[in-house]
Amino acid sequence: MSADRDLSRCSLNTASIKRATLPEAVDAAARAGYGAIGLWRDRVQETGAEKAAKLVADAGLRVSSLCRGGFLTASDEAGIAAALDDNRAAIVEAATVGTSELVFVVGGLPGSAPETAPAPGTDRDVVAARARVADRIADLAPFAAEHGVRIVLEPLHPMFAADRAVISTLGQALDLAAPHPADVVGVVVDTYHVWWDPALEASIARAGAEQRIASYQVCDWALPFAPLALNSRGHVGDGYVDFPTISRWVAAAGYRGDVETELFNQEIWDAPFDDTVATIADRYLRHVQPYVG
Amino acid sequence: MSADRDLSRCSLNTASIKRATLPEAVDAAARAGYGAIGLWRDRVQETGAEKAAKLVADAGLRVSSLCRGGFLTASDEAGIAAALDDNRAAIVEAATVGTSELVFVVGGLPGSAPETAPAPGTDRDVVAARARVADRIADLAPFAAEHGVRIVLEPLHPMFAADRAVISTLGQALDLAAPHPADVVGVVVDTYHVWWDPALEASIARAGAEQRIASYQVCDWALPFAPLALNSRGHVGDGYVDFPTISRWVAAAGYRGDVETELFNQEIWDAPFDDTVATIADRYLRHVQPYVG
Repeated sequence: MSADRDLSRCSLNTASIKRATLPEAVDAAARAGYGAIGLWRDRVQETGAEKAAKLVADAGLRVSSLCRGGFLTASDEAGIAAALDDNRAAIVEAATVGTSELVFVVGGLPGSAPETAPAPGTDRDVVAARARVADRIADLAPFAAEHGVRIVLEPLHPMFAADRAVISTLGQALDLAAPHPADVVGVVVDTYHVWWDPALEASIARAGAEQRIASYQVCDWALPFAPLALNSRGHVGDGYVDFPTISRWVAAAGYRGDVETELFNQEIWDAPFDDTVATIADRYLRHVQPYVG
Repeated sequence: MSADRDLSRCSLNTASIKRATLPEAVDAAARAGYGAIGLWRDRVQETGAEKAAKLVADAGLRVSSLCRGGFLTASDEAGIAAALDDNRAAIVEAATVGTSELVFVVGGLPGSAPETAPAPGTDRDVVAARARVADRIADLAPFAAEHGVRIVLEPLHPMFAADRAVISTLGQALDLAAPHPADVVGVVVDTYHVWWDPALEASIARAGAEQRIASYQVCDWALPFAPLALNSRGHVGDGYVDFPTISRWVAAAGYRGDVETELFNQEIWDAPFDDTVATIADRYLRHVQPYVG
């Protein structure tokens, strides 16, 4: 790899080429010269975590993160127990697959379903839902620490607050992380979710000072929205996000880890894997890599 | 009007029955027993501001607010001059029509168009765009003060930050208002835009303590999104917003003004005006009025 094409910190999140099997995704990332891959649990479970770990290592890649744990807002005993069980399994998977960073999407209002009208009797108390997230993090933190895995809180864009995640800002994620050691609970900075935040520069600086930045994920705020709003995440450069500025803030906060590109976009999912992997690399090199330290 | 059906603070925003002429909207609100009406400039301009003022007053209604000034993010001289001219005209219209509250939607990134991909060369510097908003507010504040009109900053949901408003939180709106007297620059609390904010309770309390709450607007966060995301605003009770809680916060902050229902929703726009006005009243009485002080 030439010095002017440094993809050593570039990571392919497997969601960006959703149709690819794990071996296909690993192969595509490795051939393109990426340094790392971010794994989703469904891909890992296809092969099992041990085999997944070997596949990635044999290809000379790092695992930048595992997606995803979370969904912690249930208020009933069975729901709470199920969430704790599933997250303990995810923690073990993260450790086995070779990453310390387990990304958590914490869940929306209990009983909500993605982009669906509320069912009768829906509990709309978002303040209480957030409090339960704090409680579940406290429940899981010792288990994560034992396994050398960090619970990485992902603030999702406020357009997903009802139905996917009641953590909507980086500052809020840091407040939830604050009671725990920095190597046990961290945060992810995903440009799609946080670019709009007037407190973003300050929150990134705080996250860095607190040693909590576990991942920097990039993708663009593309308009118009896709029919399913979740799938509006565009290639870096195709939307409204100011990547040089945010990347400089992340660098100034001391982050020197991998930069994952995670795209949810039907058009991109329909493209050949190698085309997507090449475009991600090209956009990373133009809009992110020169600024990220 | 019976005491258990108190619509004295209930206001019909004309956008909720978008097809209605101003006389039709005034008539529908007055017959239903509403106390006030919130006017959009297009409706006012149909009759002229003086005639609009007389129409509303003759029907025994108050004007709770005029929508909308703003669009302050232009960076070129001509764009800045045009924005100042248009907003001075809006300030005069507000004073003439008989309201002190002129709602401002401050505009997105310069050159953006609603729910449209960025044009080549789009300026993505949202920090600079926000600074220009602050400059334009300072330009307009003396003129607004002379006319007894308050510039009311509306934080829009972060899903509109790129293409409609670079003010995304109530706290940010209050920071922008802070250099100016409370009767010259205020804020609106619109549930649709701010319900998700983890700082909402604190920001509403601050807005009240600073005497800056100029309007309380209600409508619900309905899912799934409409084909044009802007038009996803649902009737109170049809979505995920916790109206009793937010209304209590607004009451605790000392707000005792009108409560406008402002819906952007094609299905509602297609309904008979009287049906919509009746549903708004019913939902207000069930989910808002008992809690709003």
